[in-house]
Amino acid sequence: MNRFGERFAFTTFGESHGVALGCVVDGVPAGLAIDEAYIQSEMDRRKPGQNAFATARQEGDVVQIFSGVFEGMSTGTPIAMVIYNGDQKSKDYENVKNIFRPGHADFTYFHKYGLRDHRGGGRSSARETASRVAAGAIAKLMLRELGITCKSGVCAVSGIEGALEDFAYASSSEIFALDPSVEAAQKAAILEAKNAHDSVGGVVKVRIDGVGVGLGEPMYYKLDSVLASAMMGINAAKAVEIGDGVEAAKKRGSQNNDALTCKGFESNHAGGILGGISNGDAITLKVHFKPTPSIFIPQRTLSTSGEAVEFALKGRHDPCVAVRGSVVCEAMAALVIADMLLLNMGRTLEGLKRHYFEKSS
Amino acid sequence: MNRFGERFAFTTFGESHGVALGCVVDGVPAGLAIDEAYIQSEMDRRKPGQNAFATARQEGDVVQIFSGVFEGMSTGTPIAMVIYNGDQKSKDYENVKNIFRPGHADFTYFHKYGLRDHRGGGRSSARETASRVAAGAIAKLMLRELGITCKSGVCAVSGIEGALEDFAYASSSEIFALDPSVEAAQKAAILEAKNAHDSVGGVVKVRIDGVGVGLGEPMYYKLDSVLASAMMGINAAKAVEIGDGVEAAKKRGSQNNDALTCKGFESNHAGGILGGISNGDAITLKVHFKPTPSIFIPQRTLSTSGEAVEFALKGRHDPCVAVRGSVVCEAMAALVIADMLLLNMGRTLEGLKRHYFEKSS
Amino acid sequence: MNRFGERFAFTTFGESHGVALGCVVDGVPAGLAIDEAYIQSEMDRRKPGQNAFATARQEGDVVQIFSGVFEGMSTGTPIAMVIYNGDQKSKDYENVKNIFRPGHADFTYFHKYGLRDHRGGGRSSARETASRVAAGAIAKLMLRELGITCKSGVCAVSGIEGALEDFAYASSSEIFALDPSVEAAQKAAILEAKNAHDSVGGVVKVRIDGVGVGLGEPMYYKLDSVLASAMMGINAAKAVEIGDGVEAAKKRGSQNNDALTCKGFESNHAGGILGGISNGDAITLKVHFKPTPSIFIPQRTLSTSGEAVEFALKGRHDPCVAVRGSVVCEAMAALVIADMLLLNMGRTLEGLKRHYFEKSS
Amino acid sequence: MNRFGERFAFTTFGESHGVALGCVVDGVPAGLAIDEAYIQSEMDRRKPGQNAFATARQEGDVVQIFSGVFEGMSTGTPIAMVIYNGDQKSKDYENVKNIFRPGHADFTYFHKYGLRDHRGGGRSSARETASRVAAGAIAKLMLRELGITCKSGVCAVSGIEGALEDFAYASSSEIFALDPSVEAAQKAAILEAKNAHDSVGGVVKVRIDGVGVGLGEPMYYKLDSVLASAMMGINAAKAVEIGDGVEAAKKRGSQNNDALTCKGFESNHAGGILGGISNGDAITLKVHFKPTPSIFIPQRTLSTSGEAVEFALKGRHDPCVAVRGSVVCEAMAALVIADMLLLNMGRTLEGLKRHYFEKSS
Repeated sequence: MNRFGERFAFTTFGESHGVALGCVVDGVPAGLAIDEAYIQSEMDRRKPGQNAFATARQEGDVVQIFSGVFEGMSTGTPIAMVIYNGDQKSKDYENVKNIFRPGHADFTYFHKYGLRDHRGGGRSSARETASRVAAGAIAKLMLRELGITCKSGVCAVSGIEGALEDFAYASSSEIFALDPSVEAAQKAAILEAKNAHDSVGGVVKVRIDGVGVGLGEPMYYKLDSVLASAMMGINAAKAVEIGDGVEAAKKRGSQNNDALTCKGFESNHAGGILGGISNGDAITLKVHFKPTPSIFIPQRTLSTSGEAVEFALKGRHDPCVAVRGSVVCEAMAALVIADMLLLNMGRTLEGLKRHYFEKSS
Repeated sequence: MNRFGERFAFTTFGESHGVALGCVVDGVPAGLAIDEAYIQSEMDRRKPGQNAFATARQEGDVVQIFSGVFEGMSTGTPIAMVIYNGDQKSKDYENVKNIFRPGHADFTYFHKYGLRDHRGGGRSSARETASRVAAGAIAKLMLRELGITCKSGVCAVSGIEGALEDFAYASSSEIFALDPSVEAAQKAAILEAKNAHDSVGGVVKVRIDGVGVGLGEPMYYKLDSVLASAMMGINAAKAVEIGDGVEAAKKRGSQNNDALTCKGFESNHAGGILGGISNGDAITLKVHFKPTPSIFIPQRTLSTSGEAVEFALKGRHDPCVAVRGSVVCEAMAALVIADMLLLNMGRTLEGLKRHYFEKSS
Repeated sequence: MNRFGERFAFTTFGESHGVALGCVVDGVPAGLAIDEAYIQSEMDRRKPGQNAFATARQEGDVVQIFSGVFEGMSTGTPIAMVIYNGDQKSKDYENVKNIFRPGHADFTYFHKYGLRDHRGGGRSSARETASRVAAGAIAKLMLRELGITCKSGVCAVSGIEGALEDFAYASSSEIFALDPSVEAAQKAAILEAKNAHDSVGGVVKVRIDGVGVGLGEPMYYKLDSVLASAMMGINAAKAVEIGDGVEAAKKRGSQNNDALTCKGFESNHAGGILGGISNGDAITLKVHFKPTPSIFIPQRTLSTSGEAVEFALKGRHDPCVAVRGSVVCEAMAALVIADMLLLNMGRTLEGLKRHYFEKSS
Repeated sequence: MNRFGERFAFTTFGESHGVALGCVVDGVPAGLAIDEAYIQSEMDRRKPGQNAFATARQEGDVVQIFSGVFEGMSTGTPIAMVIYNGDQKSKDYENVKNIFRPGHADFTYFHKYGLRDHRGGGRSSARETASRVAAGAIAKLMLRELGITCKSGVCAVSGIEGALEDFAYASSSEIFALDPSVEAAQKAAILEAKNAHDSVGGVVKVRIDGVGVGLGEPMYYKLDSVLASAMMGINAAKAVEIGDGVEAAKKRGSQNNDALTCKGFESNHAGGILGGISNGDAITLKVHFKPTPSIFIPQRTLSTSGEAVEFALKGRHDPCVAVRGSVVCEAMAALVIADMLLLNMGRTLEGLKRHYFEKSS
């Protein structure tokens, strides 16, 4: 249950304030050049402490590869990656040891498991997503070999939404903003909330280009279904849209159908997926993140022994989790596509035969 | 890949115009009374041909149980259920044999598999969801024993959204409308589109009551993640929201956090899920359906041999798939909860010990 | 848990005396010609009632395909096959309704599930293996396209073992005997036991030819490991050997290692598997079956209410389950190989790239 | 594919001469006291370099826990354990870099993956089993809470087999011998082979006591089937027997059936399993190990470029892998039972209801 994927699959482990966290990536085809500098650069994109819009925590997030790579190449065996926990201020969490923080998983973990590691949220901390980004970097290395790209950015903050989707711009924006014309307003919204000891929600857009026709396994491992699962499983995600998503439900069929021409689809309301299978167009999706539950305004809650308490949270937290969340969405998207690529092999007898007889030669 | 669930799992088979479709439900605990009349009544809710708001196709949708039940009780072995295909007008589909219907899976199936059963969409037809409703009925029988209920209804049609959520009313509404005050307008929108040979989208709301704290398996089988997968995998679904969903992303943390008091949570913005685990409150979610792609207005597309064609679809289709889709959403929700209930057993050593030693006595 | 395989996977359902039994085969590549007469011919090999060496029960074992095949070809969607139960003499089992038959699963099913379908052993009946043979026939059709063959035969009965392995001879022998020189003695042993109202054990040999190098997924889906699981899961199987098996453990390394030369391996003690991966040589294995537990000599046992009873079983049973078991072993072997073939695709980046870019062209 | 188990599941990673190897154990119930000293003591049993009967390699095999344990207790989150590789003499393997060692996985890995980590066998090295023993130790801690014990020992070496099964004696024997009366002969056989630069095979017996009735999931996750898979997947295993195994196939039904009396089963030919489900009696099985393929006698083989070569292996190797293999068999048995215990929960509606309502209170 701490594993994602069927063929290109990864398992994560680790808590926010434990010795280390990491992942084991299984199913990576042999012969892939594992560019460690690239993996680290992906980690650095998610890394906190880089500007005023994210938590001030300093997490080195240095990835160390333990297995699966020999002389720079993947060997087909599992790739284990470890990230040691560094800047842990576990004492910051002493005051929440016996308290269920509102909007957090404290309450549910405690009741499910009968005990919990309260330090930094333990396993439920978004710190776990560092492992996903590491695994996603491996996936992206593989996709690169096939000419497939995954890009992400923030399209809305606190309801302030831009129309433009400039992924190149987003990559260098401090808040990964997709639309430069609203970036200043989005930043202001984040800082205003932060100064008010509060937080804001936001929306991430992901776009995947270069995917051919055919990815996705009906009936219960459809491409959109698995993308939805991947995205909704990210901490604080509350909604996922494929293509036009929510807007599609307001339209008529004649407006929403994408006409197919000799030059391809005339429009892409579908977000590149038909019947759960990629149609060759760009795959597009949106993920809606709730505002960070960790706020510094006094809140009412219960203690683990059932008493009503009012308390103010301490520590260091992102005022808008959607910002760093966009890197995680992108990683998860890459992991889904990598998995679907492997699953898609062998869908026809002809493909199987070709593969089998080539191998033997 | 035609299987859903880990412990309470079902596998479906069958095409729209084949001999039969059906499912094999695995993991049903032994000793559950299998009320066949109830299963059939669930089928009848989804069944088309009942009023002006759905397709005129007459599908008997009679379920026959082949295995897994002995003297009216589940035996712990797989329950196979079969629905023979009746009112098939395969000839209606002769004209689409060599055409990719816009908005349909024709194009993607053909390219993925190299061939396709064109009759009624074959496997990609929403007719497959009849199997899900049958499986869902078994799940609901189990949930009933635990006091858990799943309810569904249509909250919006073509952008016309009501404020009220009256699930009891919805159950007897021809379009499963949740808000009687907008039902007439919603019906009019459907008929207007239908008369214009077009279709409309809609939104379904699902509510699950009676679920205790603790369902959902972090990290990659979270309750919200699996619900998202289950819903997005339904034909024509394009967006899934948990709790406040899209609205949550526009709010501040102080507005969105649900305060915890001695009497429970003061609000339920979270939709009953924290950290991927049920928090004991009602689980709420929304599913957005695109307008039916099958419309009767002439459309441009390609033939399977790559030529541009304009054609007008024939046959009988739902003008708003969200209506019957709501029954499918409800079934999938029940199946997810049933699975999570079984997965949740053994989460603590104490629970395992109690179960183990009781068994031995 | 009623499913076997990862990519070429099948799910079975059905009890001995229920309406029907069958299977859903998932992952069959599209474009495979589904030869129904061949499938039926495989069923007929396993079918009882054909001679004195098997039970006199008449089971038609006619397979009906419900889905997944269109115009004679697999479509890539699940293939459901159903076998209606015919010659049921459920009354034969009235006297065992409240008794745990020694050597049978009655006792364990009853305690696990709290109730049981006593008619003919219910789900635990070897009748379930008919579904495996149907699924195996699909696998064999696929293997045939790749030049891979699975053969089986009986090498020992009641300790009478032949040295010769003539699979062609076995296919026409009434007891699937591999060595004509001991066949008469083996037949005599079966009849002698039968006449004494007793039963005998036997050993099956399976040989798979034409498998290239590379099938098997280390570390926990190795080819030998999965074959062992497949074989040991057959009713009455008590031991599985790969290659020289038990004999290998008595030898020295210098005797057991297969020297590799330009012409291939000089010997095949390994049974065609090294490190869990096929080495290109013939894959060989043996399965040891216990004597049929259903005997007609009076036996002591308990009733379901815990009283000691002595009783004599009635009904019709195989005096040596290994005979018909050999057909099941062969089917399971084919299913394992089919699964491994699909799993093996995408093991190298080069293979993935070739497959991906071919598809797009 | 580097994962074993369904509910109590573990994933392993790591090569013989990489940075580290280890495992992630998922599904451990929360609230289990994790006794690190015990885990280490289990590792030490498998550790080489302890006497003349095993390889002289010094592997510290010190386990470090990275996650999943808080204040000495399991938290229900994945437990990652790491074993750094210490005494690596990678240079010992320079001479096999371009050679396929007979009896090893060199040939198959190279052809499957197109490249290989030749150092110490890479992933295919039996060193990987250290991870299994670490995971198995967690399983044994859990089983201890339920009064279930797993024991193992060597019953035969090079065909020298004892009649006695003294597991207590085995635990302190240098070769884990089960029968003291043949231990000296078995030791002599090992040393004789070793001095001849050769190796010998052996047989391991495993016995599991205290398992109640009901473990094992028909039809394709039967207890015997999964045990067979677990055992056959251990390096060098070539045969697995359940209960009387090979001998059962030589007997008559009247000899092999275990009569059931008020005091339990009168005999245990079945090895504690009926119909794939534990019957409450001791579970017994045997695993046959081939002689170590690494021998120092000159052997003929091929180079990776296809040339015939004769070469003599260097390095340090166990003369009889069955000895240390017995510890691995025991670990795997414990892991299978742990998994089956969790899977068995929820088999009856009554059990589910009891568990569910207890939780809520």
